[in-house]
Amino acid sequence: AVHGARKMEDYGRFLALLVSALLIGFVSVIFSLVWVFHYREGLSWDGSVREFNWHPVLIITGFVFIQGIAIIVYRLPWTWKCSKVLMKFIHAGLNTIAMILAIVSMVAVFDYHNASNIPNMYSLHSWIGLTAVIFYSLQLFLGFAVFLLPFAPASLRTAVMPIHVYSGFTIFATVIATALMGITEKLIFSLRSNPAYSEYPPEATLVNSLGVLLVIFGILIWWMASRPYWKRPPEENAKAPLTTGGTPEGPEAESTMTDGGNAEKSDLRISSEAARKQNLKLDEAGQRSTM
Amino acid sequence: AVHGARKMEDYGRFLALLVSALLIGFVSVIFSLVWVFHYREGLSWDGSVREFNWHPVLIITGFVFIQGIAIIVYRLPWTWKCSKVLMKFIHAGLNTIAMILAIVSMVAVFDYHNASNIPNMYSLHSWIGLTAVIFYSLQLFLGFAVFLLPFAPASLRTAVMPIHVYSGFTIFATVIATALMGITEKLIFSLRSNPAYSEYPPEATLVNSLGVLLVIFGILIWWMASRPYWKRPPEENAKAPLTTGGTPEGPEAESTMTDGGNAEKSDLRISSEAARKQNLKLDEAGQRSTM
Repeated sequence: AVHGARKMEDYGRFLALLVSALLIGFVSVIFSLVWVFHYREGLSWDGSVREFNWHPVLIITGFVFIQGIAIIVYRLPWTWKCSKVLMKFIHAGLNTIAMILAIVSMVAVFDYHNASNIPNMYSLHSWIGLTAVIFYSLQLFLGFAVFLLPFAPASLRTAVMPIHVYSGFTIFATVIATALMGITEKLIFSLRSNPAYSEYPPEATLVNSLGVLLVIFGILIWWMASRPYWKRPPEENAKAPLTTGGTPEGPEAESTMTDGGNAEKSDLRISSEAARKQNLKLDEAGQRSTM
Repeated sequence: AVHGARKMEDYGRFLALLVSALLIGFVSVIFSLVWVFHYREGLSWDGSVREFNWHPVLIITGFVFIQGIAIIVYRLPWTWKCSKVLMKFIHAGLNTIAMILAIVSMVAVFDYHNASNIPNMYSLHSWIGLTAVIFYSLQLFLGFAVFLLPFAPASLRTAVMPIHVYSGFTIFATVIATALMGITEKLIFSLRSNPAYSEYPPEATLVNSLGVLLVIFGILIWWMASRPYWKRPPEENAKAPLTTGGTPEGPEAESTMTDGGNAEKSDLRISSEAARKQNLKLDEAGQRSTM
C-alpha cells in the first residue's frame, strides 16, 4: 500500500510536469503566431519577409515542440502497455515530422534571402543551426538503421543506445540555443527604430518571453527524460534467448539521458515492476518485440 | 588482466577528452582576447566600450571555462586518492571564482551602458543571462549549506544531490546558450558596415568560430560528467554507521549528470574497484570524509 501510494504520487508529479511542458510548448507556438501575425507581416510563400516568417513558426512548432515530445514519448506511463516497436515508430515518426518542418523552415529563409539579396550562412545562428539539422538527420537515419530495422545485433544496439540518447539530447539543447540566437537576431534586425529593441516595445517583451518559455520547455523535457524512475519498464525476458549478447531485459532497455550502460537496471526493475503490472493488462510477453 | 587493459583504455579515452576540452577552453579564451585586442579597442575600466570588452573575456574565462572544469573536477582519476572534502572545496572554490568573474563581467556591461546612455536589460540575452547568474549564486549557496557545512543530515544530501547535479548542468548549458546570444548581439552591433557582419569579415569568422568552440566545449564536459564509469568511486564504508539514512557508500556518492538516485551503484562499485585500488596508495579509510 505504501509502495502503491508512492507510485501514485510519482505518477501525479509526472502528469503535472507533462501538462506544464505541453502547456508551455503550446503557448510558445501561439506566441510565435502572434509575433508573425500581429507584429509582423503574417505568413505566405512569396519570397518576401512573410516567407521568412515561416522560419520561427516551423522551428518552434517542429524542431522544439515536436522534438521535445518525441524525446519523452517512451516516458508516458499509459504507453507502457503498447509494444516497444509501436513506440519506436511513434518516436521516429515525430522526429521525422520535426526534421521535415526544420528543413522547410530553412528553405523559407534561403528563399527569402535569395529573393532579397541577403547573404546566406554568415551568422553564428546559421552555422550552428545548419549543423544541428545535419546531425539531427544523421541521428534519425542511424536510429532507424540500428533500432528499427531488424538487422543490427543486440550488442550493437546496446553499444549505440547511450550515444543515441546523449547525442539526441545534445542536439535538442543546441536547437533551443540556436532558437535563442535567432530570436536575438530577428529582434535586432526588425526593431531598429520606432520602436527600437532597446525601448522595450511590447513586441520585444512578447518575443523575449517566448525565448524564456523555450528554455523552460527544454528544462522540463530534460527533467522528465532523465529521471531513471520514469523510464519505460524493461521488456519481458521472453526473447532473451534469441538475442546475442543482450541482457535479460533485452538489448536496449530504455535509457535515461546520460546513463552509460547497464548500471541502472537492477533497481529499476524493482521500482518499475509494480507500475508495469498495473499497466500491462492487455499484452503478453509474446506480443512484445525487442526489435 | 583483461579488466586492467579495459581500465587503461578507459583512462586513455578520458585523458584524450580532458586534453581536448582543456585545449578548446584555452583556445576559446585566446580567441576572446584576440577579438577584443586585435579587432576591438582592448581592455580598460573607464566606462568606454573597452570596459564592455571585459564582459566576453570574463564570461568565457570564468562562466564557461572555469565552470566547466569545476563540473568535472571529481572525474579526474588522480584526485580519487584525495579526500572528498578537499575535492568539494576545489569544486566550490572554482565555482566561486567563476561566480565572481561573472558578476564583475556584468558590472562592466552596466557601467558601460550607463556611461553611454544605453538602456539595460532589454534583450533576451540580458534576461536569461541575469537569471543564470542568480540561479548560479543560489546553487553555490545551497551547495555550500548542504554539502560542505556539516549540518545537513545524510538523507537531505541524498535527496538534494540529483537536483544539485541537474540544476548545475542546466545552468551550465544555459550559460553557453546565453554566450551564443551575446556573440550574436555584439557582432551585429559592432559590424554594421565596413565591413558588415553579412560580408563575412575575418572578425566574424573568428567570433563565430569562438561560438562553435563554446558549444563543443560544453558537449565534451557533458560527456565526461555524464558517463557513470568515470564517476569518482564511492567512499569507504567506514563511516556508514555514523550517518543517518545513508547508503553504505556514504550519503552522497558521486552523481552523474542526471541520475535520479541510488540506482547506479551496484555496477559502479564493481567497475570502479580496480581503479580505486590502483589509485589509493596513500590514503586509508580513516582519512576520508563523507562530509
